[in-house]
Amino acid sequence: MSDLSNEIRLDLKRAARIGLDEALLCAGKTAAQITAILDQIAASNATMLLTRLAADVADQLTINHRAALDFDPLSRTGWFGPLRSTESTRDVAIVTGGTSDMPVAREAGRTLRYYGHEIIEVNDVGVAGLWRVTERIAELQEFPVVIVVAGMDAALVSVLGGLLSNVVIAVPTSTGYGVARNGETALAASLTSCAPGVTVVNIDNGYGAACAALRALRLRG
Amino acid sequence: MSDLSNEIRLDLKRAARIGLDEALLCAGKTAAQITAILDQIAASNATMLLTRLAADVADQLTINHRAALDFDPLSRTGWFGPLRSTESTRDVAIVTGGTSDMPVAREAGRTLRYYGHEIIEVNDVGVAGLWRVTERIAELQEFPVVIVVAGMDAALVSVLGGLLSNVVIAVPTSTGYGVARNGETALAASLTSCAPGVTVVNIDNGYGAACAALRALRLRG
Amino acid sequence: MSDLSNEIRLDLKRAARIGLDEALLCAGKTAAQITAILDQIAASNATMLLTRLAADVADQLTINHRAALDFDPLSRTGWFGPLRSTESTRDVAIVTGGTSDMPVAREAGRTLRYYGHEIIEVNDVGVAGLWRVTERIAELQEFPVVIVVAGMDAALVSVLGGLLSNVVIAVPTSTGYGVARNGETALAASLTSCAPGVTVVNIDNGYGAACAALRALRLRG
Amino acid sequence: MSDLSNEIRLDLKRAARIGLDEALLCAGKTAAQITAILDQIAASNATMLLTRLAADVADQLTINHRAALDFDPLSRTGWFGPLRSTESTRDVAIVTGGTSDMPVAREAGRTLRYYGHEIIEVNDVGVAGLWRVTERIAELQEFPVVIVVAGMDAALVSVLGGLLSNVVIAVPTSTGYGVARNGETALAASLTSCAPGVTVVNIDNGYGAACAALRALRLRG
Amino acid sequence: MSDLSNEIRLDLKRAARIGLDEALLCAGKTAAQITAILDQIAASNATMLLTRLAADVADQLTINHRAALDFDPLSRTGWFGPLRSTESTRDVAIVTGGTSDMPVAREAGRTLRYYGHEIIEVNDVGVAGLWRVTERIAELQEFPVVIVVAGMDAALVSVLGGLLSNVVIAVPTSTGYGVARNGETALAASLTSCAPGVTVVNIDNGYGAACAALRALRLRG
Amino acid sequence: MSDLSNEIRLDLKRAARIGLDEALLCAGKTAAQITAILDQIAASNATMLLTRLAADVADQLTINHRAALDFDPLSRTGWFGPLRSTESTRDVAIVTGGTSDMPVAREAGRTLRYYGHEIIEVNDVGVAGLWRVTERIAELQEFPVVIVVAGMDAALVSVLGGLLSNVVIAVPTSTGYGVARNGETALAASLTSCAPGVTVVNIDNGYGAACAALRALRLRG
Amino acid sequence: MSDLSNEIRLDLKRAARIGLDEALLCAGKTAAQITAILDQIAASNATMLLTRLAADVADQLTINHRAALDFDPLSRTGWFGPLRSTESTRDVAIVTGGTSDMPVAREAGRTLRYYGHEIIEVNDVGVAGLWRVTERIAELQEFPVVIVVAGMDAALVSVLGGLLSNVVIAVPTSTGYGVARNGETALAASLTSCAPGVTVVNIDNGYGAACAALRALRLRG
Amino acid sequence: MSDLSNEIRLDLKRAARIGLDEALLCAGKTAAQITAILDQIAASNATMLLTRLAADVADQLTINHRAALDFDPLSRTGWFGPLRSTESTRDVAIVTGGTSDMPVAREAGRTLRYYGHEIIEVNDVGVAGLWRVTERIAELQEFPVVIVVAGMDAALVSVLGGLLSNVVIAVPTSTGYGVARNGETALAASLTSCAPGVTVVNIDNGYGAACAALRALRLRG
Repeated sequence: MSDLSNEIRLDLKRAARIGLDEALLCAGKTAAQITAILDQIAASNATMLLTRLAADVADQLTINHRAALDFDPLSRTGWFGPLRSTESTRDVAIVTGGTSDMPVAREAGRTLRYYGHEIIEVNDVGVAGLWRVTERIAELQEFPVVIVVAGMDAALVSVLGGLLSNVVIAVPTSTGYGVARNGETALAASLTSCAPGVTVVNIDNGYGAACAALRALRLRG
Repeated sequence: MSDLSNEIRLDLKRAARIGLDEALLCAGKTAAQITAILDQIAASNATMLLTRLAADVADQLTINHRAALDFDPLSRTGWFGPLRSTESTRDVAIVTGGTSDMPVAREAGRTLRYYGHEIIEVNDVGVAGLWRVTERIAELQEFPVVIVVAGMDAALVSVLGGLLSNVVIAVPTSTGYGVARNGETALAASLTSCAPGVTVVNIDNGYGAACAALRALRLRG
Repeated sequence: MSDLSNEIRLDLKRAARIGLDEALLCAGKTAAQITAILDQIAASNATMLLTRLAADVADQLTINHRAALDFDPLSRTGWFGPLRSTESTRDVAIVTGGTSDMPVAREAGRTLRYYGHEIIEVNDVGVAGLWRVTERIAELQEFPVVIVVAGMDAALVSVLGGLLSNVVIAVPTSTGYGVARNGETALAASLTSCAPGVTVVNIDNGYGAACAALRALRLRG
Repeated sequence: MSDLSNEIRLDLKRAARIGLDEALLCAGKTAAQITAILDQIAASNATMLLTRLAADVADQLTINHRAALDFDPLSRTGWFGPLRSTESTRDVAIVTGGTSDMPVAREAGRTLRYYGHEIIEVNDVGVAGLWRVTERIAELQEFPVVIVVAGMDAALVSVLGGLLSNVVIAVPTSTGYGVARNGETALAASLTSCAPGVTVVNIDNGYGAACAALRALRLRG
Repeated sequence: MSDLSNEIRLDLKRAARIGLDEALLCAGKTAAQITAILDQIAASNATMLLTRLAADVADQLTINHRAALDFDPLSRTGWFGPLRSTESTRDVAIVTGGTSDMPVAREAGRTLRYYGHEIIEVNDVGVAGLWRVTERIAELQEFPVVIVVAGMDAALVSVLGGLLSNVVIAVPTSTGYGVARNGETALAASLTSCAPGVTVVNIDNGYGAACAALRALRLRG
Repeated sequence: MSDLSNEIRLDLKRAARIGLDEALLCAGKTAAQITAILDQIAASNATMLLTRLAADVADQLTINHRAALDFDPLSRTGWFGPLRSTESTRDVAIVTGGTSDMPVAREAGRTLRYYGHEIIEVNDVGVAGLWRVTERIAELQEFPVVIVVAGMDAALVSVLGGLLSNVVIAVPTSTGYGVARNGETALAASLTSCAPGVTVVNIDNGYGAACAALRALRLRG
Repeated sequence: MSDLSNEIRLDLKRAARIGLDEALLCAGKTAAQITAILDQIAASNATMLLTRLAADVADQLTINHRAALDFDPLSRTGWFGPLRSTESTRDVAIVTGGTSDMPVAREAGRTLRYYGHEIIEVNDVGVAGLWRVTERIAELQEFPVVIVVAGMDAALVSVLGGLLSNVVIAVPTSTGYGVARNGETALAASLTSCAPGVTVVNIDNGYGAACAALRALRLRG
Repeated sequence: MSDLSNEIRLDLKRAARIGLDEALLCAGKTAAQITAILDQIAASNATMLLTRLAADVADQLTINHRAALDFDPLSRTGWFGPLRSTESTRDVAIVTGGTSDMPVAREAGRTLRYYGHEIIEVNDVGVAGLWRVTERIAELQEFPVVIVVAGMDAALVSVLGGLLSNVVIAVPTSTGYGVARNGETALAASLTSCAPGVTVVNIDNGYGAACAALRALRLRG
């Protein structure tokens, strides 16, 4: 009924409005649709963050687009176009409960890097081995924002929320089986955390947590 | 259609079979039905544990039955008839995350006392103040069985399960609001605890946790 | 088994650790338990925030405690002890979708005031009358943190999240009927908001949103 | 037990009764079953709309049937037999929140075209970029019926419902992840929309929304 | 913090925008809040529809407001101020499955009457006695819009949707027990109706169904 | 809008059609509505079964109606008008897991008695005391139909279904707490019973189970 | 740890006890496990019904077993060994709402045929074309048992239950999409059917419905 | 961003702390990540239990690692490194309801064997053939711990819990279809078992049940 350029309407004013570019959520889009959008971006020498980009879809892009794309298969994210230079300091720590949570953590990390922020990843510090968490508290306390990525019971969220005064953002993940219920348990546990002032984003939403961190970091003025 | 004595069939062989008396779950029973059962117990000079006994129902019992009943309104439990003497040692620790979890903890404690076991209660050691938990670990490690009573995110279950080698039994509670979902979140979080070998009973089921403790304590021979 | 003073363990080190006092969640606590805690607070000339305090429970407190308590029935919050002086500027805006969301908004507002922050409330700006929202955008953009309190479809969260670059914290509320499902729909809609970087707290958790705002405001240095 | 012609009973009187032909929902049917039905339709020179027809099932049809079938893979719909001519005016606008919602919108559009109605598609006007919606309101107000196709938080439904006086029909879609819950959140949010008089059909049911539009358009008499 | 007049912002432009006045959902509002709104309405000689107004709240209104209010306890609706005259013809039929569905049907009926439309109610025609439905089909077919109010399995929705070519709007109700699940089953059954083109509103939302009917009736030009 | 006699349409042909009278589900009906129906029944010297009749509603009936009503408060059922004589043999056994299940069992029993069938009740034979079940198997095997009324895990359904060749109808009940989930667990467990050929009715639906028994008993010819 | 013959314990006394052989549910079993069981059956010249047998698993059986197996791919059922002769009359009617429900209906039919009963299938009589149902009522009334197989809203269950006095057994199916929720809606709608005395089995459980029919047919003596 | 050795932090102190090694949950981990962990284990001559290891992932390990791995495809578990010698007595019985539950039972069994315990498996004793259970009771009573692995209605849990005085641990399994709901029904039924003192672990969590058994067995001193 209409060609693709009609179908796609980028919100190019978004960065001016809320300080965040429109990112391209690739899930549910065809390679053709993604290509049409990258054509627009390339034409204006702009930069774009791609999320939920499956490796086999990435392989269907044109050679030129593929060349301009820094793609990370673990997090299924891509940086398209010239990347911003980074600030000198690391201002976000991303903590995971287990190795299975790393793709989501990496999505958050690469989103922050896209916006010029350095981060550190602290992996595999699940509560079952509490010493792995507590020995890092002093270090973590130095970051303005801590993103906690955890599945199953997400007990790590409460433990960190109760030990840190930073902005703490929880990302529940869909790891686990049975009553982990694809992340619903981690989500509900994070929302009912006994540690005050922790906030939460959607299951597996590393991108959203990074955007929330960006909103908070802006307060430093 | 039939009188009450026909309607009630006590499982008096249960103690011989599984080492646990039949307890009287009073929820959903009328004062008349409870009275009829206590008549049978009194007639045979037996002892019975009553659970979920509302205070206003307890007040409707006969004076004789009320006199023979040691009733605790916080836990809504009653000991009917002569109580067993206790063993000399305390063998179960019951730990709660918050004050609101105490009725459930007390149900567990009074069930264990009914069977002659001494317990200790360690209250209000929620994970948001982690030091309250960790400073008690050495002490808790001395008990064969630890019952953890916690609502909301039940993070206390994972923290204790990862620090103790005892038998650890989790009782999720229906405290909290919103996505606490009347204990469903605490239940799911307990079942997906990253600490290995923790087991779980129904929401608010202090009685069941105590019975599980009794089964385990019997292993000491 | 033990007296009340044994039962309650305040986390008095919490403020030093995470910059937030322990607040007293009164739901599920008896007047006697609350009194015992206030005794401790009064004895140390400290200040405490009480949440979810039902009016009839407040009426059961001692005359002295009641006198020291600034109680607000709409939000069911109380300030116990001398209140901090406020800062000169208003730094949080609290926006509600409808009149029914006001108790939750007020809980957030009074929590922030307890910590010395001034706020504004912008009420009744539901999306069905979009002009009520859009005419306030320029004004809202001036606040470092905006708390959005909305029930039912919580469309207000997405609209504001897409128009503001501030820290935006959504509080879903349990208003409405049918598939509003006691706030579950507002919660899920907030978590799946198409506006990037919005974070969410538990249903009706005005207190938690305020604590999250406090964590963020600290970033201003 | 019986051959296929026995198994299938078309409701050929339906158009006379309710003004809508029986459409062929192909999901859950084998190519053989679909072929048997098309045989009946072809024999009577009738026309039929096919929905949820997977491309690989379409490829298994006979050459003759395939030739008589105008198949659209995006919406998985097919027009079988001679198509009605269209009316001169466009009377339905179909609006989508994002590119991922287009298959559902297309199913609605092709159903309406099957019945001789012209439509417009307004794509990718999610609420996160509110200006994309508001700049089209005057145009949309000219259509008797507006179908809103949106997933995740479906905030677009409330925004349009509050700005338009038309018949507004919401189609929640199963796009998104996590608490999008395969469209359940979009459905619940649409049903609890604060905009009065919006009605809703099943998740991803573009066909049903088009049929509802047809019922309404008939009122113009 | 602010007085009531500040707290309430009526969307007085709504009728101009979408042809529907703002109605006053009284659930969750205090008598004082309702009074403040009626003061505004009375001062401008306007008219207002009140929904979900509990009888005991209505009794707390001022004598003047109570006098100006035509209150119906079955549907918990009120007409405040002078009522519009009705059109000469009856254009909406409201059909219920059982007597328990009548409060919801009456809410729809009184909303339509508020806007000047006459309706008929066809009560108690549940599918278990199918003849009660089928004998009314010819009559029902004469109405532009049919609202079907049904709980439990809501089979009436499919039966009527398959026999009528009108605009058919289903209102699931919260009647019944067990897996009726407070209307969730009726809602899901209505949304999956095999009759094409039926649309659905929230559980018990008679008001919403009426508003949808008003949007459709406007198409008659 | 209409008087009560208009509002109520009894399905008096039902007995001729399916062999079951229309029963009067009193939940959600006012005393006035029930009275209007009983007026019709009394006028035609008919008989009617009332279910879910709360004791306080029964007390609001007229003296004449109350006199003609044989009301049982445990099951909340009433026989209105002259009762059928019973057949000589007992043909249905109703088995309960616990005392709390008796109201539902009694609803089934009184429905069967209304239709002239004698029953036996076998109460309190929960699976935790398996001997209570197995000692009754030979006796139960003599009844054409066995109705099993059980809550919580409903294990009794599987045990009886595996030991009996009769028609076995399960009625899950809403007894219990926590994950008993108001009968949903008993319902799901009954539907997934490993015993083949057990069928199930709605939670707490003793009336429905009795009607199903009546349909089956008719097969004896 | 053990060989397969140790692992499998057939309940060969089941037919003597409840009149139904043990059937072999093949889902979740390997071809090797199924082969071991068929070895036992073949050795004793017995007969066995296999359900949920995937075609590719059937193809992995030995040639001898495959030869002794009458396999139907639509219903995924197999008759292993010599089949019983049938009775002269047809005593069960199996009715489906749509073509997609046929695999489940066929499972029921082939189970009944395994036990020597003839059936008829009445397909594709969904309520949207009500005449398709009503024109068959007189015919259906002649069968002692009617099995109704229907998905989505399952309105067919209520319509047939209200028109027939037979034993009516509902089998909800997992057809449909969105809020059909894999058969949960059809199940809930069947359980809340307004037609009295309809009973229900698990979703897609054609086998269970047939077993229930067999229990009922035995009553004919 | 970092190499794999950075990413993985084994909790090597766990055995000292709680008497259980850290096991390697392979689900959600790549072969490369697993290899890196096994490198660490091999370097320290340690032993490790691998769970949820898919056969195709096992095939991607290095030849050396594969040689050191005793892999069981049914339970998807692996023993890496030298296995502990076993104790002389069998101290755990693992009972399954059906053949489909065996993978979960085997995971429990191999976990116990990893820690040096001998077990017996009692398979296929579902309640539908009650004699299969009851004839083994005396034998089962001899084991300190009984693990019950059951899906669907999990009635076996209640039957065994009511007949045995041992420690009884229930493992609900995800076998079955429809309202078996991937194990949720078995879980809920186990948690609401009428047999006192049964505890429960996550769906399909054979590993967790074994760990709970190990905690209990330690009580024998």
